[in-house]
Amino acid sequence: MDVEHHSHRGRHHRSASGLTVVAHFFGILSTILMLVWLLHYREGLDLDSDDARRVFNVHPFLMFFGFIFMAGEAMMAYKTVRAEWQVRKFVHLFFHLVAIVLGIVGLHAAFKYHDQVGLTDMYSLHSWIGMGTFTLYCAQWLLGIAVFLPRSSSESKARIAPWHVNGGRALLFMAVATALTGLMQKATSMRLQHQNEGRLINFLGISILLFGIAVDVSVALARYA
Amino acid sequence: MDVEHHSHRGRHHRSASGLTVVAHFFGILSTILMLVWLLHYREGLDLDSDDARRVFNVHPFLMFFGFIFMAGEAMMAYKTVRAEWQVRKFVHLFFHLVAIVLGIVGLHAAFKYHDQVGLTDMYSLHSWIGMGTFTLYCAQWLLGIAVFLPRSSSESKARIAPWHVNGGRALLFMAVATALTGLMQKATSMRLQHQNEGRLINFLGISILLFGIAVDVSVALARYA
Repeated sequence: MDVEHHSHRGRHHRSASGLTVVAHFFGILSTILMLVWLLHYREGLDLDSDDARRVFNVHPFLMFFGFIFMAGEAMMAYKTVRAEWQVRKFVHLFFHLVAIVLGIVGLHAAFKYHDQVGLTDMYSLHSWIGMGTFTLYCAQWLLGIAVFLPRSSSESKARIAPWHVNGGRALLFMAVATALTGLMQKATSMRLQHQNEGRLINFLGISILLFGIAVDVSVALARYA
Repeated sequence: MDVEHHSHRGRHHRSASGLTVVAHFFGILSTILMLVWLLHYREGLDLDSDDARRVFNVHPFLMFFGFIFMAGEAMMAYKTVRAEWQVRKFVHLFFHLVAIVLGIVGLHAAFKYHDQVGLTDMYSLHSWIGMGTFTLYCAQWLLGIAVFLPRSSSESKARIAPWHVNGGRALLFMAVATALTGLMQKATSMRLQHQNEGRLINFLGISILLFGIAVDVSVALARYA
């Protein structure tokens, strides 16, 4: 029957495309839960506010929606969309650039908040792995341009490709782990144990985690195609 | 020269084996940092103690050394060690069983601590994703036995294998993220901002994260071999 006409490779390719739908579901769900949290339970978002809490709230929103979500889109655009190689490559490059720009604004919001309320920068596990992730992410983007942008096919491209792919997946892993430590830090320091807001943050964390896993597995299985 | 004699596949295989050395380095480093933390800065480990803090300390130690480290060993034993398939399969199965048994003792320690000091169970993001990870891990182990233990090669084995591999990698990802949220929760609730203990916990978290990444990439690149 229909199954007979498709090889294992074909089936995995279709599974990978199915997983991008799952990834988008959790990406959009995470964005919605984040906005419910920041707009309903918290003080809203405003980078230019005198209310330091509104400045801070820009940080979690942009680090998920601007950085992690866009990075996931960039990964899936290259690996799971049926389009010409040059097109996929430029979309991949462009989404990662958007992620870097919005990530910088999101990081700025955290430092501006610290300045406003007199908190020390860069002491927590969250800040350490977050800054490490963002720095390596920018380095990976520059390395990617240097190696893969030239049209010529070369020995070095084939040699570096698996490291680029797996390095990128490790960076997604690190970014998601950083997001969860950030939510954990916020929920613990606000002592939200037995409140609806605490449970909302838990669901947000799970949704971000499932987004990361869906992106990772869709990209991994797309390799069979 | 020597490089000419090896195909790309051979080179990646060697890289994967090199990465297992890196993984073992960070696995052992994490264990040492964990013990320095629990024995020097904290109260030590004792599951039968009347001091609830000593009971709690069994939890982070066993969840890393007993659960995450052993699970990583199981993954690398199957994917990166040169041995007969049946041997690799049984070592894989056995290490995962050790991880489950030690993980259960580690979870027990957390619940016993909660009972002793009167804390509510299962409210935090850490507990939610941790329990989800452990439950799915046991399910994956049982499914693995049902599908892969029979000697016969079957259509279902080939169909399920990529999901087993990627599901296992997602579970490692989840376990490491859970560990980092646990460290973050502990450091935040103890207000360790500007102390050596806080920095030790940060380095422990980074080491656990790098262990997870090294295991993941060594297994991913071993697929080329």
